Amino acid sequence: MKIEVEKCAKTKIGDIDFGSAMPFGKYMSDHMFILKWENGQWGTPKIEPYHALSIEPSSKVFHYGQAIFEGMKAFRDANDKIFLFRPKDNIARFNKSAVRMNMPEVPEDLFYDAVKQLVALDKAWVPRGEGRSYYIRPFMIGCEPALNAVPSAEYLFMIIGGPVDAIFHGDVTVKIADHFSRAANGGTGFAKCSGNYGGQFYPSTLAKKEGFQSVIWTDDATHTHLEEAGQMNFMIRIGDTLHTAPVSDRILDGITRKSILQLAKDMGIKTDISPILVDDVVEAGKKGEIKEAFGCGTAAVISPISALGYKEHYMKLPKLQSEETFAERIRQRIFDIQYNRTADPYGWRDEVL
Amino acid sequence: MKIEVEKCAKTKIGDIDFGSAMPFGKYMSDHMFILKWENGQWGTPKIEPYHALSIEPSSKVFHYGQAIFEGMKAFRDANDKIFLFRPKDNIARFNKSAVRMNMPEVPEDLFYDAVKQLVALDKAWVPRGEGRSYYIRPFMIGCEPALNAVPSAEYLFMIIGGPVDAIFHGDVTVKIADHFSRAANGGTGFAKCSGNYGGQFYPSTLAKKEGFQSVIWTDDATHTHLEEAGQMNFMIRIGDTLHTAPVSDRILDGITRKSILQLAKDMGIKTDISPILVDDVVEAGKKGEIKEAFGCGTAAVISPISALGYKEHYMKLPKLQSEETFAERIRQRIFDIQYNRTADPYGWRDEVL
Repeated sequence: MKIEVEKCAKTKIGDIDFGSAMPFGKYMSDHMFILKWENGQWGTPKIEPYHALSIEPSSKVFHYGQAIFEGMKAFRDANDKIFLFRPKDNIARFNKSAVRMNMPEVPEDLFYDAVKQLVALDKAWVPRGEGRSYYIRPFMIGCEPALNAVPSAEYLFMIIGGPVDAIFHGDVTVKIADHFSRAANGGTGFAKCSGNYGGQFYPSTLAKKEGFQSVIWTDDATHTHLEEAGQMNFMIRIGDTLHTAPVSDRILDGITRKSILQLAKDMGIKTDISPILVDDVVEAGKKGEIKEAFGCGTAAVISPISALGYKEHYMKLPKLQSEETFAERIRQRIFDIQYNRTADPYGWRDEVL
Repeated sequence: MKIEVEKCAKTKIGDIDFGSAMPFGKYMSDHMFILKWENGQWGTPKIEPYHALSIEPSSKVFHYGQAIFEGMKAFRDANDKIFLFRPKDNIARFNKSAVRMNMPEVPEDLFYDAVKQLVALDKAWVPRGEGRSYYIRPFMIGCEPALNAVPSAEYLFMIIGGPVDAIFHGDVTVKIADHFSRAANGGTGFAKCSGNYGGQFYPSTLAKKEGFQSVIWTDDATHTHLEEAGQMNFMIRIGDTLHTAPVSDRILDGITRKSILQLAKDMGIKTDISPILVDDVVEAGKKGEIKEAFGCGTAAVISPISALGYKEHYMKLPKLQSEETFAERIRQRIFDIQYNRTADPYGWRDEVL
């Protein structure tokens, strides 16, 4: 399907100071992709100047949460070539989220073309600099104006994006959840749907009041298994093994997560994908065997954790030299691939022409 | 706080045929209430002509699901007086939802005034007729244009509404969930937040393909407890006792639910508020002891169930004369109070002047 393109009359790029901080998801580039589903089919795909949407207050997205998204990035190399990272994995996952939320799937080829054309058109917005990227946000919302609580008859699929800095959370201390939860068995935890995020804010705010920066989510039934790190997947190094929980209907099948597992394996790091028990972590903490822990995801790539709190236990992790850490070694390996500084035996890089 | 009122130039009421069906939540009346939170405080409350919102694609509501709502109704009596039903209970619950979703609470007096003024201004839209009402939808969304996954710094609180028919779902057969779930322990199930609804659509669609009209949600950890009926609370009459589950962090504290419990008690119906086990229901079904079952909530009031399916079991409920059923007797009692046809010893009716 051919994408109609309407270019903006004048770029806004002069409004952005690329020399200053670029807060995550604040600056949007000149264009956006938009595609509407109605009468049981997709309409005409369009790239338009970025603009506000006119939406009825009774639109279902405001009431019933049919809203899914993805997070992707485009990187600029030293020669001003632009690369995506594993975009087809995001597209496939988006459609899995769509199925779970009873929304129409987006044709994969069209989705892929739309991302590439949008990034190519707004290429000037892809920033230079280690850790910096053009963050791409595909999303879909149910927009039928009707309050009956059944699936929307109309949807908007959109792609927006803009330049972002690397996210470095710094010295993150985390609380292991012992009451609040992120996801239910048989729920939507594996999908990137809006409800998974809004429900985390209050428990995270409470954790902040207790002196933590974030929450490690546990299984909701027993709170005995470590599952996700805030809005990221969770990994923990005990001794010399890097552990992460298997994906499930409560845990997102993270693309950074699986990239890390692949790279770790190829770097000779032992990995273990099996349930992570709180008790085992507390035990390892007592023995001083926890070497490092981190969250991982597209936005922050790898976000190191400096301490884990669980009930009366407080496990401060050692300050390893960063080059000794799995976190830093793997992060550099990912950056090298993303910024086209090394060979890419995996075929993860995808050039935008 | 004084509410600024801007009246519409011309009513749209002539566009609606009050003699025909009025689908739920489709027709909106002439005005809406709107109040914005920014810079850490509420702005000027306004009643304006109903209009579409201009919202950035990066607004947080589209991505992270900070969205809560309430459902209320206004009723017209035989003398054209207009009444609300327990509005302060909805307002209090809305603010509980706000806390859980890390959103600002709305001052209760202002909320109450806003509902009353809006309904008074759009009084002509409150329909006549048994079961008909003006459905009121207060809601709040996080609308800051920023993709960082933290609580929104800006919110819109709005009230919209319009005329609706009584909802009669007819002969509803329901599937007792044995895999999918609505809510997690320590999650948001007790709050009226958007994510609780969107996640139900897909399992409900699958149940429809199996020949059911709706799903009875069970606890997510074991699927052994009956908890909610679709988007309503669940009640079941076994022998001559009306059973419902206690509210919890997975179950909404329904206003229709608690009204029914109060009325049942005063009508001499034995009620039991304790966990309802799937095994006990299957046992009672085998013995022919299940007399009736229904969902209850503001929209449908009481929605009778004709059959319950659970794995290989299919429990068809008897067809009692409607005047023999608790469902019909209690529904009439509620309608009599709502439409001002009887004394209201509870103080539930609240006249709009």
